Amino acid sequence: MSYTELKREVYEANMQLHHRNLVVYTWGNVSQIDRDKGVVAIKPSGVAYEDLKVEDIVVVDLENTVVEGKMRPSSDTKTHTHLYRHFDNIGGVTHTHSTYATAWAQAQEPIPCLGTTHADYAYGDIPCTAVMSDAQIERDYEEETGVQITDCFTGKNPVETPMVIIAGHAPFTWGKDAAQSVYHAVILEEIAKMAYLTRTLKQSVQPLKQGIMDKHYLRKHGKNAYYGQN
Amino acid sequence: MSYTELKREVYEANMQLHHRNLVVYTWGNVSQIDRDKGVVAIKPSGVAYEDLKVEDIVVVDLENTVVEGKMRPSSDTKTHTHLYRHFDNIGGVTHTHSTYATAWAQAQEPIPCLGTTHADYAYGDIPCTAVMSDAQIERDYEEETGVQITDCFTGKNPVETPMVIIAGHAPFTWGKDAAQSVYHAVILEEIAKMAYLTRTLKQSVQPLKQGIMDKHYLRKHGKNAYYGQN
Amino acid sequence: MSYTELKREVYEANMQLHHRNLVVYTWGNVSQIDRDKGVVAIKPSGVAYEDLKVEDIVVVDLENTVVEGKMRPSSDTKTHTHLYRHFDNIGGVTHTHSTYATAWAQAQEPIPCLGTTHADYAYGDIPCTAVMSDAQIERDYEEETGVQITDCFTGKNPVETPMVIIAGHAPFTWGKDAAQSVYHAVILEEIAKMAYLTRTLKQSVQPLKQGIMDKHYLRKHGKNAYYGQN
Amino acid sequence: MSYTELKREVYEANMQLHHRNLVVYTWGNVSQIDRDKGVVAIKPSGVAYEDLKVEDIVVVDLENTVVEGKMRPSSDTKTHTHLYRHFDNIGGVTHTHSTYATAWAQAQEPIPCLGTTHADYAYGDIPCTAVMSDAQIERDYEEETGVQITDCFTGKNPVETPMVIIAGHAPFTWGKDAAQSVYHAVILEEIAKMAYLTRTLKQSVQPLKQGIMDKHYLRKHGKNAYYGQN
Repeated sequence: MSYTELKREVYEANMQLHHRNLVVYTWGNVSQIDRDKGVVAIKPSGVAYEDLKVEDIVVVDLENTVVEGKMRPSSDTKTHTHLYRHFDNIGGVTHTHSTYATAWAQAQEPIPCLGTTHADYAYGDIPCTAVMSDAQIERDYEEETGVQITDCFTGKNPVETPMVIIAGHAPFTWGKDAAQSVYHAVILEEIAKMAYLTRTLKQSVQPLKQGIMDKHYLRKHGKNAYYGQN
Repeated sequence: MSYTELKREVYEANMQLHHRNLVVYTWGNVSQIDRDKGVVAIKPSGVAYEDLKVEDIVVVDLENTVVEGKMRPSSDTKTHTHLYRHFDNIGGVTHTHSTYATAWAQAQEPIPCLGTTHADYAYGDIPCTAVMSDAQIERDYEEETGVQITDCFTGKNPVETPMVIIAGHAPFTWGKDAAQSVYHAVILEEIAKMAYLTRTLKQSVQPLKQGIMDKHYLRKHGKNAYYGQN
Repeated sequence: MSYTELKREVYEANMQLHHRNLVVYTWGNVSQIDRDKGVVAIKPSGVAYEDLKVEDIVVVDLENTVVEGKMRPSSDTKTHTHLYRHFDNIGGVTHTHSTYATAWAQAQEPIPCLGTTHADYAYGDIPCTAVMSDAQIERDYEEETGVQITDCFTGKNPVETPMVIIAGHAPFTWGKDAAQSVYHAVILEEIAKMAYLTRTLKQSVQPLKQGIMDKHYLRKHGKNAYYGQN
Repeated sequence: MSYTELKREVYEANMQLHHRNLVVYTWGNVSQIDRDKGVVAIKPSGVAYEDLKVEDIVVVDLENTVVEGKMRPSSDTKTHTHLYRHFDNIGGVTHTHSTYATAWAQAQEPIPCLGTTHADYAYGDIPCTAVMSDAQIERDYEEETGVQITDCFTGKNPVETPMVIIAGHAPFTWGKDAAQSVYHAVILEEIAKMAYLTRTLKQSVQPLKQGIMDKHYLRKHGKNAYYGQN
C-alpha cells in the first residue's frame, strides 16, 4: 500500500481529462512515474471515468509487470513505459483522442507554429510521427507506438516540445508530472483547433517568424523567464 | 404489463441520447428487441425528452402492430423492425440526426476510416446507402429506409460495422441492446466530426493502412481482444 | 393591464432564446400578436435577458405606437409589425443573429435543402433576401427590412417556409405563436450548421431530390401527416 | 488601500472572461485606468481564475511601476499602459487568445465587415497589425506590442473600432471601462467566428455595402442613436 499518493495524483489527473471534456467514454489515459521506486501508476483499461476510483489505478514496473492493483492496466501502458525509459526528464504522460489534435494526426501532418499561443508552450512544430510499418505492427503494437515517438524526437529535447501526434492515431503529451501532462493535452487541443481554423481560413499561411517564436518560448521557459509569479 | 424491464431500458437509452446532446427537440429514437417474445419497445412519436416517461414507451410486434402502450410509436418504427428482422445478431437500434454524421449523409459519401478512433469501433468505411428511388418513396418510405440499409450491408456483418448513414437523411446505429446502440451513435458522431476536420484540413487524405485498421479493430473485438477488463 | 397573458408568453419565448444559447448579450427579440385586439407584444430594446421581467415586455399596435409598457420596444419592432400586417397566417416572430444562419446571410446565399432534417421543417430553399438598396436604407431601415422579407415571399406561403435570412444581416423566423417562432429559430440554426458542414465537405453537393423533400415535408405537415401524437 | 473599488471592478471583469469561456487556464488579462489618480489595475501574471481574489489585483502607474499589490502584474502590462497613454478616450483594456479571433490573427488578415453584427460594434474592418520587426522584438516586446497597435490606428478613432488583432498573436479590445472591454472581447470572438464561417463557405464574399455599415453603426452609436433605453 505504499503507492497511495502516486495513485491519488494519477486518479486526479485522469479525472481532469474527463472534466475538461477531452475524452469520450473511456478514451484516454494518464500515468505518472515514481523514478525512485521505479514504478508507474496508470488508469485501468476500459473503465468509465464516472466509475473510476483511486484504488482502481494500477501500478506497474518499467517492464509493464503489475506491482499493485486488481485491474488490467491501460492497453497503452507499454507506450507510457517506453516514454519513461527513453525520456528521463519527464514525470507524467497523457494520451487522448482529443478532436482537433486527432484530426491533424489523421491528416498525418505536423502542427505548424502559427502564433504565439503555440510558441508559449512548444518550441517549433508539434511533430507528427511516421506511419507505423507493417513490421512494427506485427512486433508489439503498443511498444512500437512508443518507438514511433522516440524516433521522432531524435536530437530534440522532449521538454521543449512536450507533445506529439501519432500518424493515423492521436496525440501523446507529457510533463514533469501527471497533472502537467494533462495541462499540455488541454493546450495541445486548443493549439490544434487554432491551427485548423487558420489553415482552413488561409491555405497559404506561413509559420510564425523565428524571432517571435524565440521571444515567446523564452519569456516563459528560458533562463530569464518573467511570466508567472516566480 | 410484462414489458416493464424492456421499456425501462428503452426509456433510459432514449434519455442518454438527450443527455449526450445528440438530439434537438424530439429528433431521434431508440428501440430494443426482446427476441423471445418477438416484440420491440420504441420511443413514441414526437414526444419531447423532457416529458418522456417509462410508461410512454410503445411495444410493437415485428409487423409494427402495437402490443402495449397508448401512444403512437415513432414514425421510424418500420425501419427499426426491418433491421431486427434482417440483422438477427442485433438487439438495439438508434436513429439520430446528429450534426456531423448528418453532414456526411447529406454529402452522400461514406465516412472513410482515417484513424484508429474509427478503426476501434467500425471495420472499414462507414457505408452510405444509395439515394432512395422514386419507386421506393412511393411504396413505404420508412420500410424502404430499412431496405436501403440492408441492401447496403449485403455480404457484410452488421456487428463489425454497427453504423450506417442514409444518403440525404441521417445515421442509424445498432448494438447488442438499446444502450450499446446509443453508445455507437455517440461514437459515430465523434468519428464523423474527426473525419470532417481531417478532410477539410487535407482534401487528399488517404484511408488508414489496412494493417493498422486490422490491429485496432481486432485488439478490441477479435478472439484475442485485450482491451478492457475481461 | 389586459395584456398579461400575451406578455407572459412573449417573455417566456424570449427567455427560451437565451436558454437555448441562440443569442449573445441583448441580441435577438421575439414578439406575438393578438389579432383580435390588434396588438403585438415584444421585447424592450437593449435589455439583458438576465434582467428581463414580464412587465418589461412592451405592447404596441400595428402602426408601432406603444399601447402598454414603460420601456422603448425593440429597435426591430417595425420589421415585426410589417410581417404581421402582410403574413396574416402567422402569430409569432423571432429575430436572432444565430451564428450559422448569420454566416449564410453574410454569404448572401439561400440555404439549399440538402437533407430530410431541412425538409421536415421548410419546403425548399430557405430564401435569402436581396441586399437592401440605398433608397431603402434612407427611407425607413427597419420597415424596409420587413419589405425585403415580404418581397422575397411573393407567391410563397410563409407557413410552408417559416424562416428567411436577410442578406448581410441575419435570420427571421415565424410561427403560429411566439413559442413556435423560437422553435423554428433553433431548428434553422441547426439546419444552417448542417448545410455549412455539408457544403464545406463537398462543394459540389446537390439539393435533395424533390420526391424525398415532398415526402418528408408532407408526412409532418400535409393533410395526411402521421408524425407526432395527433 | 485607496484602490478598492478599481480593483474590484478589474477583478469582476477578469472573472467575466473566465465565465464567458474566452480563456483557457491563465490566458488573458483585463485592466482599468483611474485617470485622475494616474494608475491602472490589472490581473497578476499567471494566476488561475479559480484562485484569483480581489486583493491579488495589482495597481501600477503609467510607467509600469507597482503602486499597490504583492504579486507581479500581467506580463502584458506594458501593452496596456501604452494603450492608455496613447488612446486618451479609453478606460479599460482586455487581452485574450480567444479561438476564432486568434485564428484571424494567425492568418495575419484584418476581419472584414461582412454583416450587421459586425457593423453594430466596429466601424469597418477590424484591423490586423503589421508583423513585429526584429528590431522591435529586441527592444521591448510588450511595449512594442502596444506600438504595433497604435501604429495601426493612426488616423483612426479607437472608440469607433474598439478592437484589433495582432499579427501572429491574438486580439486586444478596449472600452470605456474594464467591463466594456470584456464585452467587446466577447463580441469580437463572435464576429470572428461568423466571418470565419462566411469566408470558408464562400471564398469570394465581399464586405457589406457602405450604406448598411453606416446605418447600423450610427443607429447604435451616432448622435441620433435609437437602440436601447436611452
